[in-house]
Parts: sequence; structure tokens; C-alpha cells
Amino acid sequence: MRVPESLRALAWELPHSFLGLDEAASDLANAKVVILPVPYEATTSFGGGTGNGPGAIIEASRYIELYDQELDSEPAEVGISTLPSLMLTGAGPEEALRELRAAYERVLEAAPGRFVIMLGGEHSISSAPILAWADRLQEQGKRLTVLQFDAHTDLRPEYEGSPYSHASVMSRTHDRVEIVAVGIRALTSEEMRLVRRSDNIHVFLADDIHTGEAWHDDVISRLGEDVYITFDVDGFDPGLVPSTGTPEPGGLQWYPVLKLLRRVFAERTVHALDIVELAPIPGLTAPDFLVAKLAYKMIGYRFNGRT
Amino acid sequence: MRVPESLRALAWELPHSFLGLDEAASDLANAKVVILPVPYEATTSFGGGTGNGPGAIIEASRYIELYDQELDSEPAEVGISTLPSLMLTGAGPEEALRELRAAYERVLEAAPGRFVIMLGGEHSISSAPILAWADRLQEQGKRLTVLQFDAHTDLRPEYEGSPYSHASVMSRTHDRVEIVAVGIRALTSEEMRLVRRSDNIHVFLADDIHTGEAWHDDVISRLGEDVYITFDVDGFDPGLVPSTGTPEPGGLQWYPVLKLLRRVFAERTVHALDIVELAPIPGLTAPDFLVAKLAYKMIGYRFNGRT
Amino acid sequence: MRVPESLRALAWELPHSFLGLDEAASDLANAKVVILPVPYEATTSFGGGTGNGPGAIIEASRYIELYDQELDSEPAEVGISTLPSLMLTGAGPEEALRELRAAYERVLEAAPGRFVIMLGGEHSISSAPILAWADRLQEQGKRLTVLQFDAHTDLRPEYEGSPYSHASVMSRTHDRVEIVAVGIRALTSEEMRLVRRSDNIHVFLADDIHTGEAWHDDVISRLGEDVYITFDVDGFDPGLVPSTGTPEPGGLQWYPVLKLLRRVFAERTVHALDIVELAPIPGLTAPDFLVAKLAYKMIGYRFNGRT
Amino acid sequence: MRVPESLRALAWELPHSFLGLDEAASDLANAKVVILPVPYEATTSFGGGTGNGPGAIIEASRYIELYDQELDSEPAEVGISTLPSLMLTGAGPEEALRELRAAYERVLEAAPGRFVIMLGGEHSISSAPILAWADRLQEQGKRLTVLQFDAHTDLRPEYEGSPYSHASVMSRTHDRVEIVAVGIRALTSEEMRLVRRSDNIHVFLADDIHTGEAWHDDVISRLGEDVYITFDVDGFDPGLVPSTGTPEPGGLQWYPVLKLLRRVFAERTVHALDIVELAPIPGLTAPDFLVAKLAYKMIGYRFNGRT
Amino acid sequence: MRVPESLRALAWELPHSFLGLDEAASDLANAKVVILPVPYEATTSFGGGTGNGPGAIIEASRYIELYDQELDSEPAEVGISTLPSLMLTGAGPEEALRELRAAYERVLEAAPGRFVIMLGGEHSISSAPILAWADRLQEQGKRLTVLQFDAHTDLRPEYEGSPYSHASVMSRTHDRVEIVAVGIRALTSEEMRLVRRSDNIHVFLADDIHTGEAWHDDVISRLGEDVYITFDVDGFDPGLVPSTGTPEPGGLQWYPVLKLLRRVFAERTVHALDIVELAPIPGLTAPDFLVAKLAYKMIGYRFNGRT
Amino acid sequence: MRVPESLRALAWELPHSFLGLDEAASDLANAKVVILPVPYEATTSFGGGTGNGPGAIIEASRYIELYDQELDSEPAEVGISTLPSLMLTGAGPEEALRELRAAYERVLEAAPGRFVIMLGGEHSISSAPILAWADRLQEQGKRLTVLQFDAHTDLRPEYEGSPYSHASVMSRTHDRVEIVAVGIRALTSEEMRLVRRSDNIHVFLADDIHTGEAWHDDVISRLGEDVYITFDVDGFDPGLVPSTGTPEPGGLQWYPVLKLLRRVFAERTVHALDIVELAPIPGLTAPDFLVAKLAYKMIGYRFNGRT
Repeated sequence: MRVPESLRALAWELPHSFLGLDEAASDLANAKVVILPVPYEATTSFGGGTGNGPGAIIEASRYIELYDQELDSEPAEVGISTLPSLMLTGAGPEEALRELRAAYERVLEAAPGRFVIMLGGEHSISSAPILAWADRLQEQGKRLTVLQFDAHTDLRPEYEGSPYSHASVMSRTHDRVEIVAVGIRALTSEEMRLVRRSDNIHVFLADDIHTGEAWHDDVISRLGEDVYITFDVDGFDPGLVPSTGTPEPGGLQWYPVLKLLRRVFAERTVHALDIVELAPIPGLTAPDFLVAKLAYKMIGYRFNGRT
Repeated sequence: MRVPESLRALAWELPHSFLGLDEAASDLANAKVVILPVPYEATTSFGGGTGNGPGAIIEASRYIELYDQELDSEPAEVGISTLPSLMLTGAGPEEALRELRAAYERVLEAAPGRFVIMLGGEHSISSAPILAWADRLQEQGKRLTVLQFDAHTDLRPEYEGSPYSHASVMSRTHDRVEIVAVGIRALTSEEMRLVRRSDNIHVFLADDIHTGEAWHDDVISRLGEDVYITFDVDGFDPGLVPSTGTPEPGGLQWYPVLKLLRRVFAERTVHALDIVELAPIPGLTAPDFLVAKLAYKMIGYRFNGRT
Repeated sequence: MRVPESLRALAWELPHSFLGLDEAASDLANAKVVILPVPYEATTSFGGGTGNGPGAIIEASRYIELYDQELDSEPAEVGISTLPSLMLTGAGPEEALRELRAAYERVLEAAPGRFVIMLGGEHSISSAPILAWADRLQEQGKRLTVLQFDAHTDLRPEYEGSPYSHASVMSRTHDRVEIVAVGIRALTSEEMRLVRRSDNIHVFLADDIHTGEAWHDDVISRLGEDVYITFDVDGFDPGLVPSTGTPEPGGLQWYPVLKLLRRVFAERTVHALDIVELAPIPGLTAPDFLVAKLAYKMIGYRFNGRT
Repeated sequence: MRVPESLRALAWELPHSFLGLDEAASDLANAKVVILPVPYEATTSFGGGTGNGPGAIIEASRYIELYDQELDSEPAEVGISTLPSLMLTGAGPEEALRELRAAYERVLEAAPGRFVIMLGGEHSISSAPILAWADRLQEQGKRLTVLQFDAHTDLRPEYEGSPYSHASVMSRTHDRVEIVAVGIRALTSEEMRLVRRSDNIHVFLADDIHTGEAWHDDVISRLGEDVYITFDVDGFDPGLVPSTGTPEPGGLQWYPVLKLLRRVFAERTVHALDIVELAPIPGLTAPDFLVAKLAYKMIGYRFNGRT
Repeated sequence: MRVPESLRALAWELPHSFLGLDEAASDLANAKVVILPVPYEATTSFGGGTGNGPGAIIEASRYIELYDQELDSEPAEVGISTLPSLMLTGAGPEEALRELRAAYERVLEAAPGRFVIMLGGEHSISSAPILAWADRLQEQGKRLTVLQFDAHTDLRPEYEGSPYSHASVMSRTHDRVEIVAVGIRALTSEEMRLVRRSDNIHVFLADDIHTGEAWHDDVISRLGEDVYITFDVDGFDPGLVPSTGTPEPGGLQWYPVLKLLRRVFAERTVHALDIVELAPIPGLTAPDFLVAKLAYKMIGYRFNGRT
Repeated sequence: MRVPESLRALAWELPHSFLGLDEAASDLANAKVVILPVPYEATTSFGGGTGNGPGAIIEASRYIELYDQELDSEPAEVGISTLPSLMLTGAGPEEALRELRAAYERVLEAAPGRFVIMLGGEHSISSAPILAWADRLQEQGKRLTVLQFDAHTDLRPEYEGSPYSHASVMSRTHDRVEIVAVGIRALTSEEMRLVRRSDNIHVFLADDIHTGEAWHDDVISRLGEDVYITFDVDGFDPGLVPSTGTPEPGGLQWYPVLKLLRRVFAERTVHALDIVELAPIPGLTAPDFLVAKLAYKMIGYRFNGRT
């Protein structure tokens, strides 16, 4: 839907890119941020709909103010390029994740040094970028920490017959990375045992962190220098984001999450991130808007006073 | 959301153009059809939502098969270019329609000879293209016939304080064109009196045409050679399209409409058309799909065996 | 929400009366029609919501054109007075129906000679006006015929522990009246046996009347001179009216119903009527609109060329 | 949720089995019909939700009258056993279909001679029972005809990276069976070419059969003696069943479908059937009800006057 | 929907019992907890739908993790037996409550010593178990305290013509028990006067307890040793549970409720409980999930370290 | 829908006035409060629906308890008169606001000394009453302070082609009044610059006030003696009120808003107020209820211990 030169002067709608940025501001060659929508949905539990997540986030993002009063700047000025949705094969999750891993590498190559934000889709897709970054860092003798916002640990060896389920995404990666999980409030006893006996998995139960911010220090201290953030929106309280597959009561609130994230970006190197598991409810756009804003806040924190 | 060359090989979603056609097939320079979305909504009555109409139609169109079994061809091969949504001023309907008229002329100039399909939005917008075509034909000494599918005659001199309301769109144009209105089943006594005393307004009441197809001949005979079609989706029965502002029971059915349209395109010259008043209901996509298919059927009829 | 004299000149919304008629046109003293909303809901089966029916019908009716093109007149000119919703006791259906019967008599007394249209609410309420009219006619040595549009015969002796259920409403009355039921397509074998052995119950199965109109004669011939119409909206096809408790496929279509009703009003004396079982679906107003229009069409047929 | 003996006398709800039949009437040992729900959903296109289909059908079925006025009998008397939902692996469609095939065979063995109705779920699952029956009949030197009600031919060699997609289900089976497809109104040109050059695929386009019933003879004549029915609910008109993935306008109506089905069951041997692709819309239960009734009508036709 | 022996090996869905427990874990003979669903709805105010509450709670419960990280155990191991829904007569609330009282006694007899959780349904049903327990304790010379979570005191002598309304449930019982009501934020002046002059009614207004937890001590101190908990879900903030009849802003939050409940179960003897007034909103499952989790948390607190 | 004398004794529903007050309690001549619904919607951004706001607020208000436990009184006793909805012209926002200004003056004249609460509708309408009060106070040598609850500053010079948009409402008035804006969390950099250089605009960012109540003093101190309150419901957190056009996360909570409002009414003279931008979501009534209660709380605060 590019407007031909002869019609540019007319008053067209904002593009359907993240924040509605125009072609100049969203040109991949210059943008420092790349949005990669991956509307993959194959192994949902309670309800479906995460396949509609990326579209809803981008749609809502078009109504976000570019100016961020907290940072007193327009983070969008770094340039944000929105790719079309990447379609993964319907041949099963293993093959789909292989495709995604390859595609993710291609994006990193095509846009070196960019800050890639993957928008899901179900949580299973996160293993592809996590492993991509774990490999990259390993080549540099470094180890990745995954900062996971989530209601569930997602550490099951397999779920519904597949080791590539949304409920086992962290199980796919936990031998390769450090995991710091925040907001957890639903896990199996097997997962809890695994957490307890693992040196590299640190869980901050929602039960323990729903008041105050003292725990922020503890989270930060658990993070290595090199961080990947995977944000399952069910980490938020369902009062804020009911639009997700298994909405667990007692979740995270808006400002504590932002404050923690701001510190993480300021005090560590965040290489990339994803936001997953939004399952939009027809007619209820507020949660979509919140998630879009979360993405933009993180862009702001990432480039705040930096280049 | 254009994909850079280096990433073209990946499996991206269909573009968000009509039918999901790619850039080549939707290039304005070569396409014979232009889709102009105008999500204008300012004077709704019973409920709102027509501003979401064009987006819903285009979204649904991406799941339509390109092959048309009735015509045994792929009408999309003529090329269909989808413009972004045209945004009209919020300064009031008179000014908005002036803007639209100017923009429509610009589109006709930028894409001469193309078949322009305007997607609304509320019905008030139809007066702009109708008058544009009436003027063009008048310059050639011809007179335009407007074939109107609608539940309402929309012949009120004004409505809710404005002569530019959706309920008065035909009143804006009836002194300039012939009107043949099909499917009418709600009008005021003033409108009925106007119909009766007007030589240039022919109304086919839904009450009279809900069975058989004998009336098709009569409709055709009322049409001049040069036709503009304005299709208010409330012409359809609300069992098929409940997603509209004032859904009147007893409306038109799918196949009779198609059969009539096929004849109109075959036996007359249809210069352009619009489809208006779809107000999508969240979670109910079937009506959006029907309207998208209607648009594609008319493209097929328009170029069937022609160029 | 009456507007004080000093503010009458401002542009206020239409009143929330049937058709949005103003106080003059809806004054009980002069109006020939009385709308009595009875949002009673106590014994629903598959889903609830009939308690919202009368409000939705009246709300939708405000967007109906007063002019009726079939009759070429404005039936509303006879005056239509809309009463507030009558609230029945929550102490159980037997007591509620006793209350309703008394209230209905009071309305008939307060508005003698008026044509009363009761809007439900669940079907159980119909027994009150039916018995009221049966008694009145009996005093005159006449016998009432109830013309029932319905998917179900509602002839169960009791249902869910109550003989006053919506599923047994006709069972409450069938020893007092003739019943002619149209559109039936769900009944128990006991009900079928009762129908077969009863001289005064005539059932027109939907299976037998879904094409043509030949059966209209037969329906008419079964009706005595004095008729009460009880219209359960599930008589309509669920494609038209999905908003009801037990939507049975294969129901009645719009125009055949209208044609039959027109003849009934023309050829018999219809004393009163009710429309029941609309359970509005949030966001889907088309069925509410259809039912409102049905009520207005019947008003038109009732007073067509008469006084 | 079995009620212990000591509490049987209380008034419990109907069981959540098909029609709400109690344990006696739904005991597998005696029932002649077996309902096998398979809520598999992996490769949806336009929208999701077919995984909720079987549950919605069974839930709605509990409000169906057991008595069938067309057949003047209670078809449920043959006994109908409802199995729990069969869960297929999330490891991908190929593996899932392998599981389903094995499970289907197990069900046929466990319940020999029963009439098995599989409730989907997406259409991809139909290949398992079709091939099971094709094999069984081949062993007897017979050839299966699949009578397919559908808007789409589903004859693509593969779709979205998988040859096991809902859009390629018939492609999985067409070399093993005769196909008679009814209601088709969306297919690719490749599919149409395949249809034209295949002796064993007969397509009845919706365009050709939307009026009259003359085509019923033709359908019947194309059927071999041994028939499997696969009913994609998008074969119905979206005015009746909007609750499906790609709702194509111009679909089949209720009574013509019933009449054809009655003849098929009377004139051929139907070994088993499935009903697929219902994607329930929250708050809109009428389509679920229609599909449940369709299943019951077919049970009635199957055992009408037989054992 | 019991699976016959021969088919047990297949992968069936979780049973539709609370938490999806299988027959062994939900066998009444061994389970320590009994779930009694009572979907009674007869006297609703603002909107309806509480009749769908029990089903929605049980459905959502199937996605709850059995492991409870707060208690570091699997409370489900005590065994939880889910009865089918108990259907009460439609003959009116007085009769329905008489039926419920009798049924509740039967359940207590059939399952002596079990912890019974009744799921509503409207609040009116709570008087039956409350009075059953008041009687039982009185026989032992004890007096029951009812701990009521609620937005409303429900102390009206009668409401909408019935003394058995949801709005008068506590009025039915307050002469027999101590009442401690938490979260109240809507009551009549008559109710407030009654509260003030009653020694046995202690109200904790939401206005006074929305910050801190100091009031927990006060609540505990007001409770006698023997407690029944009636939890009207409108006690929660509507941001968490909008799915209820009269959602009053300013309600209780998740963690303070849990902390209080944990103490109540630890420091007093809770004999039984109910959860009522959930009116599920189609498409919005998060509140159903919260309420299911509330029920499971209370089971955990009840049997924490006990037998 | 006035009940004639002869039928007054029957049990009619509550009137559809604010709180459902009867004619006596809502008689304009005696009532101290006037509710003026203005369902104007012309320039919405993200989604529409504010035109349904006033109706939803009034409908929900009918279920509010008249007694206010915080104030220990029935604020409704001052009398509250609900006018019908005022319909503004569809000829454009400039003309509509002119009409509204004139109508507002007429209401002030017709009901001198009353406390007028305008219910929107979109925010653009607020400029009319603000300027009306600014003029009135100026005549007395006073200056009005507008206390604005909002997520957005609404200080754009124009928006979508109109200087009368909802996004520029405060820009229409800021040269005439003092502005104290609370809850702001989305604004353009231009708006921020304007705020910073303006002496008469004081903004309390949501980022700064989401904890504690210390900032209340600061807000109060910024208010002049004469206050008008304009309450855009998007000031609230979207977890509480998702039903609005651009729901910004991180908004205001219920009790802090009430506490601030109580002080404002106690310590300043509030002349009038409006509540705008509620866009009701079908099926989700909790936000409507909250907004209705907000209006009633403010009435209580206004007349608390005064006359």
C-alpha cells in the first residue's frame, strides 16, 4: 500500500507499521530498531488467539504518542523498522522453530547491530532468538542471561506431546543460558524441583514481589552483563491483560515492571527481546494498547541517552 | 512494511492489500483496478463503526481465492492497486466532502482509465465520486445513472442538521443523475412523494423483488448506458450482513444480487463504484468476508472477457 | 426525563418510547395502541437474557421509519403509548403470573378498546393475556383462537418443576382456547400425542411450510373470528434471530410471516398480541431491529384502513 | 462427574454427553452410535477456534428435543455413546494424524458395528477416518465414496508448508476414494483443473445448486453404495453458520441439505461421518445448535426404520 | 463420558471435573473435598448470567497447576470430588431453597466429614448451607460465624417481592449466626441501621480496608471458632472480576484476600464454604480463572499440613 | 413513558433517569443537581463509541444504592433532574459546539443555581461549559480553574483538521482559565513545551503520582477558589475503565481519585463538572457502573453537609 508519488500530497492514514511511522522513519537501512512479528500459534492450552497478537500490538501502537514524558524525548527518532509478519510452516513446531531460527539469523545479518524486537505469537517461538543470541555470545566467550517475565516457568520437558510447546520453551534453552524469571505464580512440582536444584535458574515468585520494589536489586544482581528479555504478557496481572491463554491472578503491575526494566536497560546490555502470548479479545483493545506501549517503553529505555 | 531485498526469500505474510496481492500485482502503474478506502464516519444513526469498514473488508479479502469458478478465471490478473486509507478532515461533513471530491479527482488523474472502487465509511461519501462522474460525463454530453443498492432511499434534504448526512446522500445528487434504487424498504413519506413525482428516480422496493428475478429486466431497462454503482451493504438482508447501522429486515439475497450485477456490467458501462456502510462487529467476520467477496465479484464482472 | 417548558426548544433526543414518539403521540388517552413491556425472566433453558428483550425492542424501534411503504401510510398516526416496564415479583412464576394477570386487566380497564401489545420477557407470561381475553370473549359467548408463532409447542404439563414455565405456557391455556401453532419444529413425543388427539390444537410444522405460501389458506381457515397472537421470536429462522434461548434451525422467513399476518389481521379480529423470547446479544442489534419492525408491521396491519 | 448411588435421587443436570443422555442410554456396550470428539486445531487460516467446536456442539445438543417430528420417532433410542475429547499430539499434523488413525481404528475395534460420528476440529482430521474406511472396504473389494459438504474442495497438495493441512485433506485421500463434493464455492485454478481431469471427483458448485432440488438426483447417482460423509460446516451459508474459519457467502440452506441427506442415508450405506470446522463465536450459540441438530438429524436418517 | 476399559490407553482430554481430576482422584468415597455446583439464577438485578457460573469455574479450573508454590504442595492430593450441577425447581425461590437445603443435607450425609464447596449461582442459595451448618453446630451447643466477602450486605428483609432474593440472603440467616462481612461498599440506609444496632453483624467497609493489612487482625478477632465462608465474587474489585451482576468499584484485591483467608483457615475451623455470583462474560475468561484459583487456594489453606 | 394516574399502583420499573429517581425526586424545579447528557461523537481516534456513553452511565446508575456509606447519607435527597440527551448538529464540530454553548446557557438560565453535570460524549464538548463558566466568573472579576482528570493534555492547537477536536479541547480554553491536569501520561513534545512555558497550566504526570497521596496537597494548592472539573475517564487506569478511545496504561486508581475529589469539593467552590469519553463495550458493564458511581460520589461530596 505504498502511495505513488503523484498522490503523496493527499491526507493518507498512518502506515500500519509500529507507531505508524512513515517509510523514512521505518527504513531498515537506517532504523536502529527492527520489529519482527511472528504470529505463530500451534500449541495453545486454555484458549487460542496468540496468532492475532502481533497485528493487534502494531495496530494499537499507531495511537501511541511518540513523545515519552518519563524520558523527555521521542525514542522513535532512532528509527523503527517494522517487518511484515513472518509465517512459519504448519508442518509442526520442531520444523517451525528451525525455520524461525534460520529466519532470525537472516534478519540479524540483514540488519546488523539493530535492536530486534520479536512480537509473538505463542511463547514457544522465544527459543529461536534465545539460542541465536546464546550462540553469538558463546563465540565471544560470554554467557547470555534470559530475563523472563512470565506467570509460568515454562520449564516442562515437553507438553502435549511436543518438546517445542509454549510450556517448555525455557526447557529448550536452560542448559545454555542463565534464567531469571519474574512474576512466576504457576508451575508444576517438577518444575519447582528443577528450579531448586539448578544454579542457573532464579525465580522471583509473584507471591513474594507483589509489594514494594526492594526485590529489584535482587533481580538486577542475578543478571549477567548480557541479557535477552522474553516477556510473556501473562506476567502482568489479568486485571491489566486478560487477553492471554492462561490468565493467572496476582500478576505484575505496570509501574513496578517499568521501573525494573529501566534499570535493566541502564545497568546491563540487552541484546534483543520478545513479547509473546497476547491473545487479543475482540472489542477489548486496552490490553493491546498496554503491550504496544510496553514495547515502546523498552525502546526508550534501550536508547535513552545512548546511540 | 516493505521487505528489504535481502529478506525477500523468507516466508512473509500476504500484504495487507486487497486480496493480499503483492507489490507487482498491485502496482498502480499497471493495475486496472484501484481500491480507495475512505473510512469516514461522522453522522451515524443507530450505531457507529463504519470507520472500521474498509480495514475489515481488505483484511477479509486476503482470504478470498483468486480463482472465480463462476467466471472460470482469476480476475485479479488485471492488477488491483490498494491505496492507503484516505483521511478526511474532522472539521465537518461539508468540508470533508470537498476534500474527498478533490482527492477523488486526483486519483482519477493519477490513474487515468482505472476502475476505482471506493470503500466506505458512511454513505455520505458517495456524493463525491457520483458528482465527479456526473461532471465528467456531462462534459461528454452524457448523463450518469446511479444504480443504488440500499435499504433506504437516502433522499432526505438534510438529516441531523446537515445536508451532507448519510441519509441525504442521494438528495445531494438527484438533480444531476438518474437514480435506480434497488432493495429499498425504509423511507419517509416525503421521500416517497419525491420518488413518485420524480422522473429520474426509480425505486425497486424490497417488498416487490424478494422472489424471482423477473424484475432484473426492469432494472436494466431503467439504466442509461453510463452507470455508477453505489452499494450500501444494508441493501443485503441483515441475516447476511447484520454489521451495519440500521439493519432493515427483508433485504436482498446473495445470488440475485450477483446475477443482476453480472448483467449490469455486461450490458452497460460501469465507470466506478463504491461499497459503504459496513460497520464490522468484533468477533463476527462473516459479513466482512461477504462484502469483500462482493467487491471481487464486481471486479470479475467488470473485466470478464474484456480489457 | 420530561423536558421542562423552558427547555423545549432545544434539540433533544427522541424519547425512549416505541418508535421514539413524543408525549403527544404516545399519550395513553388518545393512543389506539398500548405497548406493555414485561421483562420477566425466570425459567430460561439454554441461555438467559429475555429480561433484556423489551428494552432492546423499544431502543431499536426508535430508528424505524414511521412511513410504511407496503401500506403507503404512517401507522404510528393512530398513536402508540409505551408504558414503562412492568416488574413482576421474584417470589416465583405462579405468583408472578397472578400479578401479571391483575396488571393486564388493569391496563385493559385504564385503556379500554386499545390494542395492547405485550413485549416479553419469557414466553410463560403469555398465559396471562391469553386467559384474560379468553374470559372476556367467553362472557360474550365467543371462543378465542390463539395464533402461535413458535419453534416449540410449549405444551408440556410442567417443566423444570413448574407448570408456569415458558415451555408449558400453552399447556396453561389449551383447555380454554383454540390453538393454531405455526413454525413448530421441536416438541416432545408427549406433546405430539397431545396435538394429535386434540381437536383444538392445530400445528403447522416448519418442515411442511418452509416453501410456498399455499399453507396460508389453511392457517387462516383454522382461525376463529377472535384471535390473539403470541409470537415467540424463535419461530423465526435463527439466521434472522439468533438472539433467543433455544434457536432451532429451519425457521420462518420474514416475508412469508408478514404476508400471513397481513391476511390474519384483514380477515379476522385480532384483539391483542404479544412478542416474547428475544434475548438480545450484546453488539448484535439486527435481530432487535427485526423484532421491533415486526411489532410495527402488525400495528400497521391492524389499523390498515380502519379506525 | 458420576453421581454416587446415595445421591442419585437428587435433581442433577443432564450429563454433558451428546443430547445429555444418561449413562444407560450412552453406554458404549449397547449404543449403536458413538460420538468421537476430536478438538484438533493446528493449521487454521482466517481465524481460529475450531478446537472449541466439539465442546460447543455437545453442549448445544443437550437442548435438542429427542423426538424428531419429521421421522415421528426418537432416534436417540438406538443409544448414543459420547466419548471424551481425543487429544492429539502437538508435535505436528503428520504425527497427529497418525495418532488419530490409530485411535480411530481402536474405537472401531472397541465398538464394532457402531456408527461413529467424529466431531472436529479442523478438516485435516477427516483423512484418518476416510482412509480407515477406504482400507476396510478395499479388503472387501469395495470402493468408498466420500460425500463432502464444503465451501472449498480442500484439494491442495499442501498448504502453509504442510500436506496435512485442512486445505489439503481431500488431496490426502483422493487417490483412494470417489469424491462427491457439494456446496463448493471457493477453489484455486489448480484445484479446478484437478477436478476437471479427475474421473473420481465430482463437484457440485454452490453457484449451480442454490435453487431447486433437481440436483439431488445427480448427487445420488454419483455415489457408490458405500459412503462416508465429511461435513465441513462452511458448506452452510454464513447467514446460518458464521462460526467458521473462512465463511464463504452463497452457501447451502438447511432444508435442501436435510432432504439430500435423508435420501443418501435411505439409498446408500453410510458407514461413518464427521462434522468439522465449527469455530464457535462467544455469545452466539445458534450456529452451534444448528450443527448439533444436523448431527442428530443424520442419526435419525441413519437408523430410520432400521436397526 | 466415561471411557470404556478398552479405550483407556488413548489420550483423552482431562475430565470436566474441578481441576480436571480423573475418576480416582475425584472419587467421592475417598476425596476430602466435595464440589457442589448449584447454577441457580432467579432473582438477578443488573444483568444475568450467574447460572453459567459453576460451569465456567470448573472449566477454567482444568488449567490450574496442581502444585501450589505458596504452600509448596499439591493440595489436590486430598482428593476432590465434583458433583454434577444440582438443578433447583423453577417454581420459585422459596421452594428452590427448600429443595437445596434438603439436597445439601443429603450431600453431607452421603459424604460425612468432607469439606463441601458450593459453587453458585446467585447469592440467595447461600442461606441453605449456612442454616444447615448453624443447625448442626447448635446441636453441639456452638454458634456459627459466617465470614462474608461481598460488596453488598444483602441484609434486606426482602427484594423484588421475595424474602429469598440474593439481596436478602444474609437477612435470612442473621438471627441464627454471627456475621462478619468484608469488602462491603454498597448498602441501604436501612441495612446500615441494622448493622449498627446488631451485636452479631460486623461490617468491614471497603472504604476502610483498601490499604494495608492491619484490619486482618480485627476480622480474625471477630470470628468465632466455627466458621462458614460465603464468598460473593463482587467482593473483588471489578477490575479483577467484572463478571458479576452489580460490579461496585473499589473492591478487594487478590493478595490481601488470600492472606486473610490463609489466616482464617489456620486460626479457625472452617466447616464449609460457597462462592457465588460469578456471571461469566463470553470471551473474557480471566475472571473465571481467578475464581477457580480462589477455590483451589482455599482448599490448599484448609488442608495445609492437616488431614 | 409516564404512567397515567390510573396505573400508578402497579409495580413499574425504575425510571431511566440518573439513579432511577422518580418524577418527584427528579423534578427540575426542585432538584439541586441537573444531569445533561450530550452524546456527541465526531472526532474519535482509536475507536468510537463515546456517543453511547451517557446512556450507559444513566442505565448503570439505576443500580447504585442511594445511601453512601462514606458520607453516611443519601446524597440523592438533594434532588437530581436528568434531562434527555441533547443532540448536536451533524454539520461539524464548530457549529456543534456553538449549539452546545447556547444550550448550556439555556440550561443554566432555566435552572439557576443548580449543579450541572454534563455527561459526554467526546471530550471536545467540554469547552462549551468551561467557557460559559469562565465568562460568568470573569463578569464577577474571578478566574476559573479547570481541574482536568485525563491521560492526555488535549492541548493540541488542532487535530485531524479541526481545532474543535477532543484532542484540542484544552487548547480552546487555556488562554481563559487556569488548568490543573491530573493523571497525564500521553502528550506530544509540543504540548509538553507549551505546558512548561505556561504559567497557567499545571500538569501532574501519572508517572509521578501513582503512589501515595502526598501530591494531593500540591493539586489543591494549584486550584483557585472557583473550579470546574472535567473528568475524561481515560484518566483512570484501563484495568478499571478499558472502555475508552485511547486507553493508556498506568492510570489513576479509584480511592486516590475519590480522596482528592472530596478535598477539592470541601476546600474549593466547584461550579459544575463533566464526565466524558466513556465508550461502553457491549457486554462489559463494570466500567459504566464505575463512572456512574463516580458521578454520584461527586454529587455527595458537593452537597455534603451543605445546601
